[in-house]
Amino acid sequence: MILRDTPSRWEIFLILNGSIVPQILPNIIGAAMWALIVLLLDQMVSWVPRISIGVMGVFGLSLSLFLGFRNNAAYDRWWEARKIWGKMVADVRSFAQELRIFANSHEDEEFILTHILAFHHLHRGQLRRDDVRNDVTHWVGTDAAEPLIADVNAPNAALRAISGRLRKMSEARKIDGFGQKALAERLACFPAAQAGNERLLTTPLPFVYSLLVWRTTYLYCLLLPFALLDSAGWFEPLVAAVAAYVFFGLAQVTHELEHPFRDKAAGIPLSALCRTMEISVCNALGRPAPDRLEPVNYILE
Amino acid sequence: MILRDTPSRWEIFLILNGSIVPQILPNIIGAAMWALIVLLLDQMVSWVPRISIGVMGVFGLSLSLFLGFRNNAAYDRWWEARKIWGKMVADVRSFAQELRIFANSHEDEEFILTHILAFHHLHRGQLRRDDVRNDVTHWVGTDAAEPLIADVNAPNAALRAISGRLRKMSEARKIDGFGQKALAERLACFPAAQAGNERLLTTPLPFVYSLLVWRTTYLYCLLLPFALLDSAGWFEPLVAAVAAYVFFGLAQVTHELEHPFRDKAAGIPLSALCRTMEISVCNALGRPAPDRLEPVNYILE
Amino acid sequence: MILRDTPSRWEIFLILNGSIVPQILPNIIGAAMWALIVLLLDQMVSWVPRISIGVMGVFGLSLSLFLGFRNNAAYDRWWEARKIWGKMVADVRSFAQELRIFANSHEDEEFILTHILAFHHLHRGQLRRDDVRNDVTHWVGTDAAEPLIADVNAPNAALRAISGRLRKMSEARKIDGFGQKALAERLACFPAAQAGNERLLTTPLPFVYSLLVWRTTYLYCLLLPFALLDSAGWFEPLVAAVAAYVFFGLAQVTHELEHPFRDKAAGIPLSALCRTMEISVCNALGRPAPDRLEPVNYILE
Amino acid sequence: MILRDTPSRWEIFLILNGSIVPQILPNIIGAAMWALIVLLLDQMVSWVPRISIGVMGVFGLSLSLFLGFRNNAAYDRWWEARKIWGKMVADVRSFAQELRIFANSHEDEEFILTHILAFHHLHRGQLRRDDVRNDVTHWVGTDAAEPLIADVNAPNAALRAISGRLRKMSEARKIDGFGQKALAERLACFPAAQAGNERLLTTPLPFVYSLLVWRTTYLYCLLLPFALLDSAGWFEPLVAAVAAYVFFGLAQVTHELEHPFRDKAAGIPLSALCRTMEISVCNALGRPAPDRLEPVNYILE
Amino acid sequence: MILRDTPSRWEIFLILNGSIVPQILPNIIGAAMWALIVLLLDQMVSWVPRISIGVMGVFGLSLSLFLGFRNNAAYDRWWEARKIWGKMVADVRSFAQELRIFANSHEDEEFILTHILAFHHLHRGQLRRDDVRNDVTHWVGTDAAEPLIADVNAPNAALRAISGRLRKMSEARKIDGFGQKALAERLACFPAAQAGNERLLTTPLPFVYSLLVWRTTYLYCLLLPFALLDSAGWFEPLVAAVAAYVFFGLAQVTHELEHPFRDKAAGIPLSALCRTMEISVCNALGRPAPDRLEPVNYILE
Repeated sequence: MILRDTPSRWEIFLILNGSIVPQILPNIIGAAMWALIVLLLDQMVSWVPRISIGVMGVFGLSLSLFLGFRNNAAYDRWWEARKIWGKMVADVRSFAQELRIFANSHEDEEFILTHILAFHHLHRGQLRRDDVRNDVTHWVGTDAAEPLIADVNAPNAALRAISGRLRKMSEARKIDGFGQKALAERLACFPAAQAGNERLLTTPLPFVYSLLVWRTTYLYCLLLPFALLDSAGWFEPLVAAVAAYVFFGLAQVTHELEHPFRDKAAGIPLSALCRTMEISVCNALGRPAPDRLEPVNYILE
Repeated sequence: MILRDTPSRWEIFLILNGSIVPQILPNIIGAAMWALIVLLLDQMVSWVPRISIGVMGVFGLSLSLFLGFRNNAAYDRWWEARKIWGKMVADVRSFAQELRIFANSHEDEEFILTHILAFHHLHRGQLRRDDVRNDVTHWVGTDAAEPLIADVNAPNAALRAISGRLRKMSEARKIDGFGQKALAERLACFPAAQAGNERLLTTPLPFVYSLLVWRTTYLYCLLLPFALLDSAGWFEPLVAAVAAYVFFGLAQVTHELEHPFRDKAAGIPLSALCRTMEISVCNALGRPAPDRLEPVNYILE
Repeated sequence: MILRDTPSRWEIFLILNGSIVPQILPNIIGAAMWALIVLLLDQMVSWVPRISIGVMGVFGLSLSLFLGFRNNAAYDRWWEARKIWGKMVADVRSFAQELRIFANSHEDEEFILTHILAFHHLHRGQLRRDDVRNDVTHWVGTDAAEPLIADVNAPNAALRAISGRLRKMSEARKIDGFGQKALAERLACFPAAQAGNERLLTTPLPFVYSLLVWRTTYLYCLLLPFALLDSAGWFEPLVAAVAAYVFFGLAQVTHELEHPFRDKAAGIPLSALCRTMEISVCNALGRPAPDRLEPVNYILE
Repeated sequence: MILRDTPSRWEIFLILNGSIVPQILPNIIGAAMWALIVLLLDQMVSWVPRISIGVMGVFGLSLSLFLGFRNNAAYDRWWEARKIWGKMVADVRSFAQELRIFANSHEDEEFILTHILAFHHLHRGQLRRDDVRNDVTHWVGTDAAEPLIADVNAPNAALRAISGRLRKMSEARKIDGFGQKALAERLACFPAAQAGNERLLTTPLPFVYSLLVWRTTYLYCLLLPFALLDSAGWFEPLVAAVAAYVFFGLAQVTHELEHPFRDKAAGIPLSALCRTMEISVCNALGRPAPDRLEPVNYILE
Repeated sequence: MILRDTPSRWEIFLILNGSIVPQILPNIIGAAMWALIVLLLDQMVSWVPRISIGVMGVFGLSLSLFLGFRNNAAYDRWWEARKIWGKMVADVRSFAQELRIFANSHEDEEFILTHILAFHHLHRGQLRRDDVRNDVTHWVGTDAAEPLIADVNAPNAALRAISGRLRKMSEARKIDGFGQKALAERLACFPAAQAGNERLLTTPLPFVYSLLVWRTTYLYCLLLPFALLDSAGWFEPLVAAVAAYVFFGLAQVTHELEHPFRDKAAGIPLSALCRTMEISVCNALGRPAPDRLEPVNYILE
């Protein structure tokens, strides 16, 4: 995730980091060149047929409709991913509270809370293909970490270990029925969050929208120069470039937000959120807490 | 569900799989032909009356309003279906956790979790008319499967079997009141999800919207050529074809997403989600898990 | 609720059932006649002042804004009504499950589940002024039905009977505290759903929106012909009729969806949903279940 | 809240009750006069500079954006207020059910349910500055009512009385732990609803939006006549009046809905909803119930 | 938060407090000057190339799309922040109710409720960098306050103190299992709210949107004068200034609402909400309550 203050008036056109201009530069240049070719053809060679700007207005409206819809849907996905991870942070803290209220056995607390951290690191590995072996081993030790990492559904294996532990605590009368119920309810929050993230990971926006949006954007930019001949004159390449910037830019932004776990610059900062959880767990266990992760070169991973 | 990476710049116009062009090709060709006829009539035979492009702009706005609304509503249905199934996956995993915490009797766990799989397969059969006999039989055995499949409300029969089992476990003191309460709460998630899916299955978008959208789209495409005579010139058939692509395309996409369980290419991948549940259940029961379903020819069923 | 497959290309303009054309035909004809009068006045009698089509574009935008907002709000109401009833179906099934898990006394199950059916029929009567005496009597018997039907708040009386029964079951030790809590929680779902439906029934969209929308639509159609004189020529009556179809059509659709319980063609199929509940209750009680209600002449009540 | 059937075709322009025309009449007349002045200046005195209608289209779009956003936000506030009050009605009924299931002591039921009515009347007084002394006294008696009314946070004082009573019931073994838990959960619904209503009461839409909307609307109406000179001719004052009606009308409607508790004509009918609760409580206590409140002159308070 | 009544017709253009005009005045003046330069160049020096106003309409539409989306997203953030704090107020009141119902030990009530106030003040300090030492010390005393303030995650430390206290109450048999469960459930509301606010604090809208919006707004204002040459004449600088007001104004408003905790004029009034909680706690503990905070110079902190 990119974290930057709002740029000053003069910086706005200079910032490249966090801008989508580099990715869509070929499209912008291509649109300007195509407009220039049409303009020169018309001026130098022979009369080129026109389309009225009103016609382009109708297409522009449809294009806005598509882009607007896709943008809203993609942003909702991104924000939902952030919400789920925010809720996970809260659930880790509540889990620690409830362990203190209902269990009050430091060893069990430690087992459960470190396994919850293992769950989150493994889940981060599942979502972003990060290598999380070191993180998992750091918290639960090598012996416990290996079978987890080897499991088909590694995050789930960590939760299974916790539910087994809760069973044992209950059999050893360390928790009563109320504690069992409360902790089981909290534990159920994590598969729910995991399933939510898996949904965002495995179910992108319907592919047909991507096709519709990209195709319409290309068609729009192909036809636009014929509409600009009469209505923009020598501004034509500039206007075509601005139009390409606006429409391809939005299409590209949308494409990045659609996959909130894929890209480290545009995506949700999973490593930083896992660190936040680690701090909370250390606080609860009375251990020294690591530092927060800070953005590097404006990017928080 | 179609799963594809974003196509490269050159592929965008070539992809047919996942595109709605084949379905609406007659409309695109028809619109272009009609525009050509009007154009030729005007140029060759005699002056044809005009409509100003501004008038079409007003209609285009209304059409966008209709299409945009219907598109949002259809996408919401599709996404809600995916959310419900994602929650079902989470509930299966939580059910397994809670059985371990509260019951810890392998035989009961096995009965309940395999019947939950039967419920999901039967529900998939209810939603998509898939033949699920083999899947149900595979998990609960022929003797238990037959009465379920024969039931009027087959998925519900599977849940009834589970609630009967929970009653017996409680009578045999295998679970206490807390376990009974926790497992009953989890079990109630499944009828809720089933009713949600039945709602999406049996209650489409109000029919009157379909009529309004299709009629307005046809009227728009019928009138458009008279507006293009002055404002698009020889581009007329091309512009009419693009307009038909854009408007009929969106109407068609919407129509497919509206029914998230009907079509295997556009719909929710129920078979793959059931498989995900099977893997989770196998993990919980300590059985070898089957492989995930992978997309075939970009389509995940 | 109208249930129809998407019409084929040729049927789209022929379907009347489920169309709003009949209701707004006077408006469409009126708009076309008024446009014809203005056109003839201009052509035959004397020059008529013009409004530029750009001005109408600004009004068209505002009108779209009003209609779009009102349409979204009305559809949300309709869909919320369907959601509430879908949740009621799920709650009936969960109630049956929980009675089996916690109570396991057939007589009590029967009393409670048939009274839940009575509640839903009485609530349907409250919402849609259906005569539900026969349905209520059929399920709970005449003796129990009469005081319910006579009550000021009949559906609530049915729920009161259930809560009294739960009290007695608890006093007779047929359910323990856990069962009492679980069943009381489920029972609280029904007043919540009832209050939601009463909200949709008694609180329509603010009246001022209806005035604003209808007045603006009429003003738009009154002024439109003066804008079409130059921009549509002899197409004028046709264009005015299409505009009237589009704008009055959406206003009318919205008006119907706004009241999800008023109209049997546009509204929620309460009878069919009550039947679904009856089937679930019969399944739970081991009685033979009635058949689903099927649409008659495409209309499901 | 205004309750009226949809007016017939002929009534639409005659209804004043529930219309916002009276409030914005000065603006409509002002806009028409200003347009007339500009028109006469141009025709009689000297050429006046023009703005093209296309420019106004761009402003009109922005204005629609502002008005549309503010309208959605205001309607959401109004509807949320109605939802909260609807949920309160449901919670009162569920409270009565749960008292019957868990407590079954008529005296306690009476104390709690009448204090819940007192809470709602006091909350209504807090929201709408109604004088509720008589209502509160009627239900809980003068002795109990005086300290409540004198409290800084009067509605909260009523809830405190209930929680003290629940404590006493628990100490007297009239309710067990399950009942205590169930009734405490229900009781927590009321502070949540109260805080929701307080949020709507004390946090209006950001003031800056009001400024932006009103300023842009005035600027639009000031500039419009210069754009209409060429594009509306002698229709100019009429068109300006219609534009003022549309834009000021929506701004005014929004302003009224934004404060769902301020105005009796546009706001939520709190008195009628409190009466609905009174009826439910009387039913639960076996007392004769008062009549529903009916709209007076189409207005339900 | 600015609290003002709707201004009268004459005040609308005079209010500066709460207006965004001061912040964007350089942009408005710059746009007007640039338009004047282009106009004078065209009139005095030589013919300047034109862009048709239709082209600007297409850009205006895109710009509206961007601004509209960003505005909705920012307002949703602001409103969500207010909702979370409103829920916190309700949770404090419910916590007090539940302590009375389940615990009834004045000393414990006092400890827990004052620590909840400390939590909220510390959380306010975390969100808005307010100095909260005095507030925390006032409620829990210096001895308890210092370790809280020194903690890495200060608000969490306050909650940890409460969960430790609940454990002790349970060990001392001051609360039974039901009370333990109920109070633990309530206590879990606060980490959830804290995580929600942290999400709003640390995750702004994606930076790329800001770039896209500001860049497009600047490009629009740069190109607009060339479009106004023919369509606005001598109104050109005025129209350019109005356009700058509208577009930069909305961009600036959005920027302020996006950070609901940053600014005291535009943000959520955290101090006033903490005071509301203090009053509720004092009421519950039978202490004299402080006064509500009132807006100073229309600003409520």
